[in-house]
Amino acid sequence: MSLKFVEAAAGHVPTGLLIRHILEGAVATAAEQEIVYRDRFRYTYAAMAERVHRLASALSALGVGEGTTVAVMDWDSHRYLEAYFAVPMMGAVLQTVNVRLSRAQLVHCLASTGATHLIFHADFATLVADILPDLPELTCHVLIDENGAVGMDGVAGEYEVLLAAASPPFAFVDFDENAVATTFHTTGTTGLPKAVAFSHRQIVLHALALATTMGWQPVGQGLRRDDVYMPLTPMFHVHAWGLPLVATMACIKQVYPGRYEPALIIDLKVREGVSFSHCVPTVLRMILDAADTVGMATLAPWAMLVGGSALPEALQNAATRSGITTFAGYGMSETGPVVAIARSAGENSAELRRAGRLVPLVAATTVDAEMMPQPRDGISVGELVLRAPWLTACYPGDSSSSDDLWRGGWLHTQDIATITSNGTVEIRDRLKDVIKSGGEWISSVQLEDLMLRHPLVKEAAVIGVPDPHWGERPIAFIVIDELAQAAEAIDSLGSLLAEHAATGQMPRFAVPARFECIDCLPKTSVGKIDKRELRNRTS
Amino acid sequence: MSLKFVEAAAGHVPTGLLIRHILEGAVATAAEQEIVYRDRFRYTYAAMAERVHRLASALSALGVGEGTTVAVMDWDSHRYLEAYFAVPMMGAVLQTVNVRLSRAQLVHCLASTGATHLIFHADFATLVADILPDLPELTCHVLIDENGAVGMDGVAGEYEVLLAAASPPFAFVDFDENAVATTFHTTGTTGLPKAVAFSHRQIVLHALALATTMGWQPVGQGLRRDDVYMPLTPMFHVHAWGLPLVATMACIKQVYPGRYEPALIIDLKVREGVSFSHCVPTVLRMILDAADTVGMATLAPWAMLVGGSALPEALQNAATRSGITTFAGYGMSETGPVVAIARSAGENSAELRRAGRLVPLVAATTVDAEMMPQPRDGISVGELVLRAPWLTACYPGDSSSSDDLWRGGWLHTQDIATITSNGTVEIRDRLKDVIKSGGEWISSVQLEDLMLRHPLVKEAAVIGVPDPHWGERPIAFIVIDELAQAAEAIDSLGSLLAEHAATGQMPRFAVPARFECIDCLPKTSVGKIDKRELRNRTS
Repeated sequence: MSLKFVEAAAGHVPTGLLIRHILEGAVATAAEQEIVYRDRFRYTYAAMAERVHRLASALSALGVGEGTTVAVMDWDSHRYLEAYFAVPMMGAVLQTVNVRLSRAQLVHCLASTGATHLIFHADFATLVADILPDLPELTCHVLIDENGAVGMDGVAGEYEVLLAAASPPFAFVDFDENAVATTFHTTGTTGLPKAVAFSHRQIVLHALALATTMGWQPVGQGLRRDDVYMPLTPMFHVHAWGLPLVATMACIKQVYPGRYEPALIIDLKVREGVSFSHCVPTVLRMILDAADTVGMATLAPWAMLVGGSALPEALQNAATRSGITTFAGYGMSETGPVVAIARSAGENSAELRRAGRLVPLVAATTVDAEMMPQPRDGISVGELVLRAPWLTACYPGDSSSSDDLWRGGWLHTQDIATITSNGTVEIRDRLKDVIKSGGEWISSVQLEDLMLRHPLVKEAAVIGVPDPHWGERPIAFIVIDELAQAAEAIDSLGSLLAEHAATGQMPRFAVPARFECIDCLPKTSVGKIDKRELRNRTS
Repeated sequence: MSLKFVEAAAGHVPTGLLIRHILEGAVATAAEQEIVYRDRFRYTYAAMAERVHRLASALSALGVGEGTTVAVMDWDSHRYLEAYFAVPMMGAVLQTVNVRLSRAQLVHCLASTGATHLIFHADFATLVADILPDLPELTCHVLIDENGAVGMDGVAGEYEVLLAAASPPFAFVDFDENAVATTFHTTGTTGLPKAVAFSHRQIVLHALALATTMGWQPVGQGLRRDDVYMPLTPMFHVHAWGLPLVATMACIKQVYPGRYEPALIIDLKVREGVSFSHCVPTVLRMILDAADTVGMATLAPWAMLVGGSALPEALQNAATRSGITTFAGYGMSETGPVVAIARSAGENSAELRRAGRLVPLVAATTVDAEMMPQPRDGISVGELVLRAPWLTACYPGDSSSSDDLWRGGWLHTQDIATITSNGTVEIRDRLKDVIKSGGEWISSVQLEDLMLRHPLVKEAAVIGVPDPHWGERPIAFIVIDELAQAAEAIDSLGSLLAEHAATGQMPRFAVPARFECIDCLPKTSVGKIDKRELRNRTS
């Protein structure tokens, strides 16, 4: 017995899962819908599509074709959105470059992909000039100069000038949906950034599955046709979580904030009626502070998908007071990124802080070190491992890391989680951040969450340090406004946690052995707390 | 230059687009969600999944394997849902049999697919006994006997008895997503029914794209996680429009009504809190009549996706009075079926009667006989042609019809439509129902819609008959309650249409040359008006 297949009609044209079809479908049904860039520019979906054709024509004239890697260094803009479509639609590969990386990291990233073309914002001109000597393959450079294109030595042209000169109809053709569409680097906390790559098929499927989930979310926790969308996760970071594609597919108004300036972001939110955004906790904190500064009583309605790190309760409560409904999403660079979204039928804010429910077509389980599945009981913990149609298949050019990633036929997230019987995923810790004391696990995520409820504590991080008796003991780093209050803060934090331990909210042995006040916590290039750096400081 | 591909990690397990992943994802996140069958049975998603495993084990023991065609003849039931999953998940092909076909048509359908296994409800026992002698390949029969399994000569067993005896864990495996999952026959109005087939990939993609659209619809026009779903389009008919899969993916409560009995349907709607259904206009009419009979003041809230035929304004108004929000969908057996869904931000009921806006990833255009695209201006008409990732690739075993279907690289719908600049598709007529009078097109859909507004008119159909001077002239058939009022109805209809023509709502030459009152309109097996039969009667 064997599977049955049918032979297609002679004239049958199969429609592959190509990014182009998202754009074409959106323009066919929402030609007049708006896209806004800061307070500088607004245009329609139809005009955007025309510029996508112009960009492809211009890039083609500069030698871009199938398989060419075109790198982009820009703030979140309509131009970035144009590149999201034009470059992959040509069969070329869009490399989204993390502009916050160090010089050495940037050189590594651009060399490892073999990028030959670079579109960069004038804000990065100095940086680009600095790295180009080490990138002999990267020969063609397009400058984005928003302040009138005066040009720059050695560049092929200015973005707007090239687009104006290009002819709009570019003959996009169909091709294999498994062709690579994008590449970027994960900024893991060990070693050099690792490249990941996503095919057209993966990106379209991620967008579809994410779109279904966002459409199904309870009111105020989703993204629907009547929403206005503004990303607050950089577009260089995992396709801005795939939301620009979802927003385009849903034909909704989109607002791009450029470089993140809190006052402008709040101004855009109010003026353009933004109702849905997504960000990491540090950006949310920044917005709340700015809202306080300008004296905004409320930012409602504003649904905010928060990911990248755990959403602390204190931050969620502060957001709620400012009219922002927060709910957690879970994923990583290797997973497209979204694999789970929190939801709550009621006002259960605790449920909205968990990683949430799995997106359709995602299979997840927790396993021990021997890959034995753990019970789905909301108690047992293990490493979260995943399968889904859009997970990255490898780290290109790094077969050893690739094999680790897919050990045992599942993608390893390196996150310690528990799964409940109704499929709610709750992340307890990063595998490498786990603290093991006297043979028991201590959740740094829980400790940080509890400490952040203290009125003086602005930021908190807990790491494990070696201990001859217990194996490891937790120590806590906190950031407070007034260093003069350090002793008071540490004292009362100690009592607070001891109290939580006494009432059974956390184990007694999880109370940190030591508290340290520091000026600020070290951050990675995507805004996460850099615990590796903290561990280095204590060793 | 050539496209870039990446080499997957050694351990990478690609997740194909398989129906199994929809079920597994749903059970993982909504194990306790309910599925209800009439007033007889209710169980959870987890229990359903267990029975899917049992059904697969039982079928496997009866010789079903990859590529086996398993036919089902049942009313809309939880068993049908189990077969929707179990059969394709085994790599076998589910044949959904239209139980309203004639004996000759049934024999043709079951012979043409080479079905070897049949699961049939006791209600069809006589019919099955009658056709089996002509189907030597169809050797294994499973009986569904809801009234206690007494068995029947020659059957392999009764459904519940087989499931109870089967062992639940069946080892489903991954396979090629392009394998055929389902087959059924289109009941076109010419010739024998034609087989179509859909792969796992097509069905999963259709479900995803439909789910996004239903999630994005305005409140009361969509399907969300808090809805309760009940199909009112038979499950043998194009996967009940794909909605059982969408409902499962969305993890919502599902209610299966069995054989359509209006009083029971209304009872289930009220008792189980059904808030979303889909049906053809004739079923909607039946429900409204039954609601009147039992004296239901309102059925609200009840969103009803209406397709299969145009949604007449008079019927929509009657539904609104009964608390049912109607909105049109568009598609056909060959298209999965859904390619467009009506929506309206306000209470614009006219907009909700149009075929609507395209689902994501669908490309549509209207063309003339030479395949020249027509303007998207809401005025120009042409045949609607489509591309999408889930359209059927052929009529298996009928290469001539397949070539016609995909002539020029587009799927031909044989519907005459206009598309507006914002992508709203409005169907004007079936290509073969178009009336051409004096070189001008007359829309039978528009004429019928206008006639149905007349208080005496219950049903209406317009066809073209040959005319030596004009080429064709329209004649109208109407059904009224009291034949004694025929003369009055015809008189006032003539004046009504003349008035519409005078006010420019329709062309003067479209006023029918003749009106005829008849007892009832002939219908096809899926409840559409059979115009071929009407034309036969007049020739």
